[in-house]
Amino acid sequence: MINIAILGYGVVGGGITEVIDRNREKLSAFVGDDINVKKILDLRDFPDSPYGDRVVHDINEILNDDEITIVCETMGGVNPAFDFSLALMNKGKSMVTANKELVAKKGLELTECARENGVFYFFEPSVGGGIPEIRGMRTSLAGDTITEIDGILNGTTNYILTRMKREGVDFTSTLKDAQRLGYAEANPSADVDGLDAQRKIMILTAVATGYLVKENDVYCETMTKLTPADIDAAKRWGGAVKLLGSARITDEGCALYVAPFFVPESFPLSFVEDVYNAIRIVSPVTGDVMFYGRGAGRMPTAGAVVEDVASIASGLAAKEKRCEWKAAPEGYVKPFEENLFSYYVRVKNDSESEVLEAAELAFGKVEKLCGAPAGYVEFITDKIAEKDARIAIAGGAFGTVESVIRVH
Amino acid sequence: MINIAILGYGVVGGGITEVIDRNREKLSAFVGDDINVKKILDLRDFPDSPYGDRVVHDINEILNDDEITIVCETMGGVNPAFDFSLALMNKGKSMVTANKELVAKKGLELTECARENGVFYFFEPSVGGGIPEIRGMRTSLAGDTITEIDGILNGTTNYILTRMKREGVDFTSTLKDAQRLGYAEANPSADVDGLDAQRKIMILTAVATGYLVKENDVYCETMTKLTPADIDAAKRWGGAVKLLGSARITDEGCALYVAPFFVPESFPLSFVEDVYNAIRIVSPVTGDVMFYGRGAGRMPTAGAVVEDVASIASGLAAKEKRCEWKAAPEGYVKPFEENLFSYYVRVKNDSESEVLEAAELAFGKVEKLCGAPAGYVEFITDKIAEKDARIAIAGGAFGTVESVIRVH
Repeated sequence: MINIAILGYGVVGGGITEVIDRNREKLSAFVGDDINVKKILDLRDFPDSPYGDRVVHDINEILNDDEITIVCETMGGVNPAFDFSLALMNKGKSMVTANKELVAKKGLELTECARENGVFYFFEPSVGGGIPEIRGMRTSLAGDTITEIDGILNGTTNYILTRMKREGVDFTSTLKDAQRLGYAEANPSADVDGLDAQRKIMILTAVATGYLVKENDVYCETMTKLTPADIDAAKRWGGAVKLLGSARITDEGCALYVAPFFVPESFPLSFVEDVYNAIRIVSPVTGDVMFYGRGAGRMPTAGAVVEDVASIASGLAAKEKRCEWKAAPEGYVKPFEENLFSYYVRVKNDSESEVLEAAELAFGKVEKLCGAPAGYVEFITDKIAEKDARIAIAGGAFGTVESVIRVH
Repeated sequence: MINIAILGYGVVGGGITEVIDRNREKLSAFVGDDINVKKILDLRDFPDSPYGDRVVHDINEILNDDEITIVCETMGGVNPAFDFSLALMNKGKSMVTANKELVAKKGLELTECARENGVFYFFEPSVGGGIPEIRGMRTSLAGDTITEIDGILNGTTNYILTRMKREGVDFTSTLKDAQRLGYAEANPSADVDGLDAQRKIMILTAVATGYLVKENDVYCETMTKLTPADIDAAKRWGGAVKLLGSARITDEGCALYVAPFFVPESFPLSFVEDVYNAIRIVSPVTGDVMFYGRGAGRMPTAGAVVEDVASIASGLAAKEKRCEWKAAPEGYVKPFEENLFSYYVRVKNDSESEVLEAAELAFGKVEKLCGAPAGYVEFITDKIAEKDARIAIAGGAFGTVESVIRVH
């Protein structure tokens, strides 16, 4: 019998016992042993739950229970999850977490602590919910070199963008709807300002490269400024606006950013809609592979926790590519200003010829986007460095710039 | 040092040595040992290849070489690959194959032989080229119950359908183009008649259920009869025509089929274009997950071979969910006639009211599809059993039926 504990018996924590009960037989067959939830840490009591008698209120009851070998952390937040995780691993217990904030902020200390204690610190559920992209990178892509990652990593913002595209509505009213439906939190900043996606692309890049970068090394741009005019322009251009988390990896270093992008229809991420997530990974041998599925939600996330538990319990984990993260060396992440992009630009100005002439002087070659709203000119630039684009835009020689969005 | 052999030094076989050379360092780190291609079986000599001196012409040189522990079979065809594989496993060697025909036709004997000898018979490259869906089912989904599989499993037909949709051209001329470009074979039957997809859905279903069914249990419908009018109707309806290989799995049995389907835009497989493949897997816990990527080609397929080799050599394979296949019991696959589908029907008849009235009598509720070509009426039926649909169509009470395509 494999005894496990759960920290935090909320939505995902409660899902874990449900998944284990539902798939008991298949899990036992895979693991070669039964999985038993022995203790659950929560401040509350759950008198009506069949697991009510397993609930404890003191972490020491789990810490000092030598029968418990794997602990699932679904508390969220950095504290006290961080201290609990270190203490539990120091007691020889492996950890599985759905807590992307903790992994992104404290991943170095946590993976190092796991290594020192010969245990596992696993976090498949922290990125992409039920999508098995981290296991894919640690098994199927373990012998290959990952050069590009692009992800739609946040379901809330993708839901908002999908509604904006389908219905032509504005950001604020769509966000309110999403909040009413429970898809967005009362304080939506972590989602709409890109911080959630920022943590996830940090984690994916660390799995690919072994380097966990600092949060403020990852350029992060809010999607709150997007307007129906932007979404409409992307449609006319032949694609959609998506909030991407991206990494471009070379032997020398890495470009890392989260921002809204014009994504063409020829690119598979452009079709990922509603609350779905997808992660596209490029390597020279395999080409491009995309993992798609439900990026959040009680059952998919709890299912991913249980998969990680099963992989540790079955011995699979020990054979996957190890996660031994180091701090990225100075200069590993390329300054964002040096990255090259094409840009979509919308300018308030009646004179098309005036705008395009000035734009060519400022940006080099540009292409007019047809069907611009009356009184506006829209164009797409060739690839130029972000810093040069900023200078061109600040120059303002072609009128009032109303919108600038990078093109994937 | 892990010594391996390759049977067949063609496109994929040649890719294997290239992948190993290119990723040597990463593979060694993952496996914990170097991988060495010791012998290559081919009828030809390769004097200009750096591996020229490893080429042998007699299988016995590999069979009797006790240093060789893993053999990659990239010969194709059932014979002599089948006999070679059994003999090699009986000598204690594990096998990796890209040969879907062999796995689909002889999978029972081959997996049984592997089990008896305590070796592995692995076939990730046989379905979906570089897409790691089989490893995903054996690791991440190992503790869950798979209830649905839908795949775009054949790149050639998907390329043809994509061209037909984009350019409005007919099947025959698109096929000729695909042959000229090397995307379709001189004898395209295995692709366009669905046999290739049939083998692949058999393999995926066996991984999910443990039951390998017989080829003639899987209903298989050619896509050669599709016309530009069909593709256009699917567009007007709000989707695309795709050749799907599908499985619907319950405790009682399985529905299994390969056929062209109307696939709505809301379904992620509708956006898989060109030579790409994708496999969508549904399970009650994880929800729907889709794996997408390059379903064929030298490097992706060779990469998948090397991944399987690395998983055996590293010990990962031993921890994955075992593939112990049994023959499906009598009646396991539901007779195709009992499956329920909606149908798209195009009828040559000027009188819309006459057609729709007769169609409602024959099919139950139907919905007219707007924008039908002059002289035609098009409608979509509610879900009815295949056998009832056939009776309704054969009745012909609504005019000459020009096209019938199932709706996903």
